[in-house]
Amino acid sequence: MRRIGTMRTPYGERSDVPKGPGARHDAEGVIEIEAEFAAGLTDIEGFSHLYVLWVFHRAEGYDLMATPPTDDRPHGVFATRSPQRPSPIGLTVVRLLGREGNRLRVHGVDMLDGTPVLDVKPYLSSVPPADIRRGWMTEAERRGARG
Amino acid sequence: MRRIGTMRTPYGERSDVPKGPGARHDAEGVIEIEAEFAAGLTDIEGFSHLYVLWVFHRAEGYDLMATPPTDDRPHGVFATRSPQRPSPIGLTVVRLLGREGNRLRVHGVDMLDGTPVLDVKPYLSSVPPADIRRGWMTEAERRGARG
Repeated sequence: MRRIGTMRTPYGERSDVPKGPGARHDAEGVIEIEAEFAAGLTDIEGFSHLYVLWVFHRAEGYDLMATPPTDDRPHGVFATRSPQRPSPIGLTVVRLLGREGNRLRVHGVDMLDGTPVLDVKPYLSSVPPADIRRGWMTEAERRGARG
Repeated sequence: MRRIGTMRTPYGERSDVPKGPGARHDAEGVIEIEAEFAAGLTDIEGFSHLYVLWVFHRAEGYDLMATPPTDDRPHGVFATRSPQRPSPIGLTVVRLLGREGNRLRVHGVDMLDGTPVLDVKPYLSSVPPADIRRGWMTEAERRGARG
């Protein structure tokens, strides 16, 4: 695995990142791609949305059960977005606002400033919203679990 | 990074995987999670769709420009799903059909049989289809580039 770049976001600390029920990721940020990989961005401007794969670089170890900020009950780590996972990879869908050279300005960041980026991919299609079920998350919202 | 499991799919060779314009991923497969990580699947049954992060384990090296099967022109690797990328991580959205212990039966696989799995995450929301732009892919379809 190679670090291809670094995230610039408004979030200096984990507590700065909006979490819990109703959290919205409306922040803008920049994906700074290393100069040696900049050619890999050719034609990326045509895509409205991107997947960003990044490293939970502040996470230490992992826990197979996680109690997320959106619930007061533990769930299996693969049914959550917990940073303490066996492979500490984060995944965020962002909207591409513009590109200046090796810098991609994006909307919808939720990672810490300085986060290492592993990969960027085009977002090609989405699951119809009516087909998506969100298991314990929907139940937690119904119960009004703590935020 | 840790391997948490292995994909079982109908695709023994790269040439077996549907590619190019109009390719559909209707195949079913199984995510076999290692016994030591099985507890991390708790409550995953409630989610309709999952992200699977996996390794392009047959890829060797990377190329910053890629000519995809859906076009006859090269594009930057980060604007494609080419396996020859600096961090050889694949990302697939699958529909969860059922779970038997540490085995997840899923629909929509596009990776080779035996592919190492790094992570599984719940699919929580999607970009409204009307908001998605797919750059060179749409142009290639209009031009009727080779399949």
